[in-house]
Amino acid sequence: MSIRVGIVGVSGYGGGEALRLCANHPSFEVAYVAGESSSGSKLIEKFPGIGRLGDLIIQKWDPTALPKLDVLFASLPTGASKDALAAVPAGTKIVDIGGDHRYVDGWTYGLADVWPEQIKSASRVANPGCYPAATLGALAPLLAGKLIEPGNIIVDAKTGVSGAGRGGGDSKFSYAEVNEDLSPYGLLKHTHMPEIAATIAKVSGGSSAGLIFTPHLVPMTRGILATIYCRTHPGAGVTTEQCLETARKFYAGRPFVRVTDKPPHTKWAMGSNLTFVSYAADPERNLVIAMGVVDNLGKGAAGQAVQNANLITGQPETAGLEGTPLWP
Amino acid sequence: MSIRVGIVGVSGYGGGEALRLCANHPSFEVAYVAGESSSGSKLIEKFPGIGRLGDLIIQKWDPTALPKLDVLFASLPTGASKDALAAVPAGTKIVDIGGDHRYVDGWTYGLADVWPEQIKSASRVANPGCYPAATLGALAPLLAGKLIEPGNIIVDAKTGVSGAGRGGGDSKFSYAEVNEDLSPYGLLKHTHMPEIAATIAKVSGGSSAGLIFTPHLVPMTRGILATIYCRTHPGAGVTTEQCLETARKFYAGRPFVRVTDKPPHTKWAMGSNLTFVSYAADPERNLVIAMGVVDNLGKGAAGQAVQNANLITGQPETAGLEGTPLWP
Amino acid sequence: MSIRVGIVGVSGYGGGEALRLCANHPSFEVAYVAGESSSGSKLIEKFPGIGRLGDLIIQKWDPTALPKLDVLFASLPTGASKDALAAVPAGTKIVDIGGDHRYVDGWTYGLADVWPEQIKSASRVANPGCYPAATLGALAPLLAGKLIEPGNIIVDAKTGVSGAGRGGGDSKFSYAEVNEDLSPYGLLKHTHMPEIAATIAKVSGGSSAGLIFTPHLVPMTRGILATIYCRTHPGAGVTTEQCLETARKFYAGRPFVRVTDKPPHTKWAMGSNLTFVSYAADPERNLVIAMGVVDNLGKGAAGQAVQNANLITGQPETAGLEGTPLWP
Amino acid sequence: MSIRVGIVGVSGYGGGEALRLCANHPSFEVAYVAGESSSGSKLIEKFPGIGRLGDLIIQKWDPTALPKLDVLFASLPTGASKDALAAVPAGTKIVDIGGDHRYVDGWTYGLADVWPEQIKSASRVANPGCYPAATLGALAPLLAGKLIEPGNIIVDAKTGVSGAGRGGGDSKFSYAEVNEDLSPYGLLKHTHMPEIAATIAKVSGGSSAGLIFTPHLVPMTRGILATIYCRTHPGAGVTTEQCLETARKFYAGRPFVRVTDKPPHTKWAMGSNLTFVSYAADPERNLVIAMGVVDNLGKGAAGQAVQNANLITGQPETAGLEGTPLWP
Repeated sequence: MSIRVGIVGVSGYGGGEALRLCANHPSFEVAYVAGESSSGSKLIEKFPGIGRLGDLIIQKWDPTALPKLDVLFASLPTGASKDALAAVPAGTKIVDIGGDHRYVDGWTYGLADVWPEQIKSASRVANPGCYPAATLGALAPLLAGKLIEPGNIIVDAKTGVSGAGRGGGDSKFSYAEVNEDLSPYGLLKHTHMPEIAATIAKVSGGSSAGLIFTPHLVPMTRGILATIYCRTHPGAGVTTEQCLETARKFYAGRPFVRVTDKPPHTKWAMGSNLTFVSYAADPERNLVIAMGVVDNLGKGAAGQAVQNANLITGQPETAGLEGTPLWP
Repeated sequence: MSIRVGIVGVSGYGGGEALRLCANHPSFEVAYVAGESSSGSKLIEKFPGIGRLGDLIIQKWDPTALPKLDVLFASLPTGASKDALAAVPAGTKIVDIGGDHRYVDGWTYGLADVWPEQIKSASRVANPGCYPAATLGALAPLLAGKLIEPGNIIVDAKTGVSGAGRGGGDSKFSYAEVNEDLSPYGLLKHTHMPEIAATIAKVSGGSSAGLIFTPHLVPMTRGILATIYCRTHPGAGVTTEQCLETARKFYAGRPFVRVTDKPPHTKWAMGSNLTFVSYAADPERNLVIAMGVVDNLGKGAAGQAVQNANLITGQPETAGLEGTPLWP
Repeated sequence: MSIRVGIVGVSGYGGGEALRLCANHPSFEVAYVAGESSSGSKLIEKFPGIGRLGDLIIQKWDPTALPKLDVLFASLPTGASKDALAAVPAGTKIVDIGGDHRYVDGWTYGLADVWPEQIKSASRVANPGCYPAATLGALAPLLAGKLIEPGNIIVDAKTGVSGAGRGGGDSKFSYAEVNEDLSPYGLLKHTHMPEIAATIAKVSGGSSAGLIFTPHLVPMTRGILATIYCRTHPGAGVTTEQCLETARKFYAGRPFVRVTDKPPHTKWAMGSNLTFVSYAADPERNLVIAMGVVDNLGKGAAGQAVQNANLITGQPETAGLEGTPLWP
Repeated sequence: MSIRVGIVGVSGYGGGEALRLCANHPSFEVAYVAGESSSGSKLIEKFPGIGRLGDLIIQKWDPTALPKLDVLFASLPTGASKDALAAVPAGTKIVDIGGDHRYVDGWTYGLADVWPEQIKSASRVANPGCYPAATLGALAPLLAGKLIEPGNIIVDAKTGVSGAGRGGGDSKFSYAEVNEDLSPYGLLKHTHMPEIAATIAKVSGGSSAGLIFTPHLVPMTRGILATIYCRTHPGAGVTTEQCLETARKFYAGRPFVRVTDKPPHTKWAMGSNLTFVSYAADPERNLVIAMGVVDNLGKGAAGQAVQNANLITGQPETAGLEGTPLWP
């Protein structure tokens, strides 16, 4: 029996990727799509390669007039989800790809590769942000294994431009200005810091007070890399192999995480729900460099959202997510 | 029952895309992979996101020592296929993604969207080149419908860099030299001209003597656009709508071709086996501009190869090829 | 003695390039800059690398309150120049980089490499558009030399994204949507057609009625390539070498045009005022493929504008324009 | 009187940029160029936009048969300079853009923006590497001002692809594989670490033992950004404004360094010899994030080389380097 899903914010990048994944999902039936600027259009007008769903009309979002849905994916701008989703019927489960419900009461933070069991019974899931997905994927094994100090972590993160969303069309995201350009932004105050800090504390049981997070905009469409500088307990002598082994055990049996010996490439994850993690340690200097790679629209948004939707609807966790990344 | 497939040239771009598609195919089982530079490695070392096939060892190509295969995909450099494939057992069907067997006796030219019925009974299929795929997809309806003069066609074609293949690593394909660069090449003598000319003649029944074909290298990884300048019979008054309608009828029921009112974008096809075609006519000047877009590794190589393999093995034509294009 | 120049539209791409060139010009002194969105800012806030001009304040454009200027460069959106420039004092010469005054009475069309003498005495110069610059640079020698039929020309032109200007910030020009994308647009009706047609007629003395012009958007910031399909008189037997020789003679002594044996690359012109032209002929088929490359912001906009300003102020034609292109 | 310069390694990216800058230099005359793969060609064949130097023949490098030169720029692969330059006559001053002579006896490390006076009397200058140029530009003021602990510095650096040089044409630098890809490499062992460490120690007078340096390859042609995590003395309460002010004073009167309030963009430096530095401090956590941006071929290679050549030949420091960066 198929599961009826809806997508609000379908014409944005996160919503569009949710559509792509749901369109190819073996048991999801896209029964409803809504979007602001594109309402009234057929899906095919916005997604010329969409296939059999092409005739579906994009609705103007109205939570009081939803058809019966098993799951609703919401991909709305920051600040827009809270009110918009409050009126959704309790019988419709929600995966909020946006940021408004992360670490909010009544919502489960959907870090699907790390705590799938906690998610299965949820009916309201706050999907992790793109930066947190890459960062926490790499950090979780080290934190859970007590290999690093949770209070002394520096995250230098780099994202492709689609992470900024589609809205606005600010010329600072235009091809002419982004191509051949790289810059840091949001220093010491990015909106993704609280969920990273909260998760570090949750997984490690310790304080995340020293967290430093610096995002960068990179001239590419998709992909996130987090390069994370961690400190081990002085004298602990943590080695690269120890980190890799810890991660391999931590993620044993988890279908979407690859622990690699070599530093990961963002392109390895392109179009997929995979996370790649790797580590380089310097035992003399009590240092571990943890690296995490995701597709910011995959595990960083719609991929993890579908994984979460699978978990809360009792589907196989990998349903609709088994595609191999695009290469080159 | 699964169909056993092999891929030779798996570490190139065309072979790698064939692997990606076969890995996700519902009835194909990848039983053999071979490659020159990478032989002896596991697939996972070359394709970090490959999944369950990761432990397969890349073999050194030896046609006399093949396991039993139903279909072999060959993606070898120009000139390398002829001898390499002659020794493949007759019981193994072949789809040659390379160019050596196009319009060669004993081989069927696999223009799958146009003449699927001719392909079904073949055991040796020569897959069309990437430029011909984009060009002929747009031209076939006009030629078959006698809307244009077959002897007076100018193809201005533009390709992404992966079309040049992986081999060699010539610095002229390096990022530093390709980014912000665009140029024509191979003027008046590109290797894809003969198969375009032969197909124009075959579909139209007329002469293709006036064919002009100019390829260009564009700073993008995937994608081909052919912009084609055609002449109608003087006074015929062929309109844009007439071309679109002719193409819609020609491709009615064909699953992979989209006829669009607007000029197509290469990104619409990215990662898919789709072809987009559109037309703009100027009846006063006896002109039709035909436009065709494909992913050069999709319909331009591995996508069409899998479509052909489906046809010759009796699978549904769309098996393994239903994924929606990546966007953005 | 320095020449006082002003730039209106300085925060756009064309105006910004004019600023860059004038800042490095040996005899131009930038005395006035104006812009819409950026008025009130210092130049350094918009151009962090600008150097000694950094403290200049960007003015709100008011033609009735201009300081005394020898030359004004205008780079305004289409339609905005006509009224805006009418009130400029007669004593201030104008080079209009925008399109409003091309082939308008009282304005000289500034095709500087082709008819410099006609420009020297002008006080109102309409700078050619970016596509016309690339197209006419390649065509002029063939037309003047009567090698091709002026009434049967097909221009397939490709531009980088900065050619679309900065304004608006439409998401269709965003990095995420332009990267890996290529498409034709404006078929059979682009605004640059009339000036190309008018110049073809002027140079050849014949009709340009058959002109076909198709622009394409390419994922790069700068650069234009025009690939132009021309017909020679039947039986004329025009050869490649004949075209090259004709062009070499036509441009003998002209400092900014390079006639090359090999097909030109857009990157050859990057950041410069150069035009590269080449030709490939097929005498059997009465065909000449002419190719022209410019930097759309160089010879396609601000570079030619400075060249024109040099001509009308009696400076050496190459002043401020001698920089070698950036590579890679 | 003009200064006769030679360039060995002219067909590489660093050598090519040195050629571009010298070609536009008011007092340098390029009298000799040498290159391995391109010897025997005219410069115009490799640099189609080069201008009046086009007829110069690229020589096969032979240090015993050099013409009389005032300065030789050497841009050779790592390991190739030591022997190659030993035979250069003492009367020819050398600026080695390659890495072999950094912190080698008899050679002056040419950190031109920081210690120009030390360079003026040198006849053998080892030009800083590209990563060190960006890193040390940002760190020097903080180190000299004792604002940060020299022994506890983490450099997360990101470079465009031209930094890898031209040689080889490895497919890992091909457009198809670099576009949409980002990755760390050379973890804990990059060849640029020693010169960074040595300079930190020299400028601060303290130990640089804790230096961590992680380079990343970014899909762009030019540009380097170093994001540097520094620790202040506990309780020192160092603020962002204090860092900016310290840097402004440190670089007062230096022509090529810009201290900016906002995080710098790599594109701000494109094609220029500029360095952009900025800072963000968190006094509560004893943290300073220092940021440095250069064009890896400008200040990171040929730009600084020309600056050094100016210093050692008594030219104005800015001669030939006054061009404004390309934008967009």
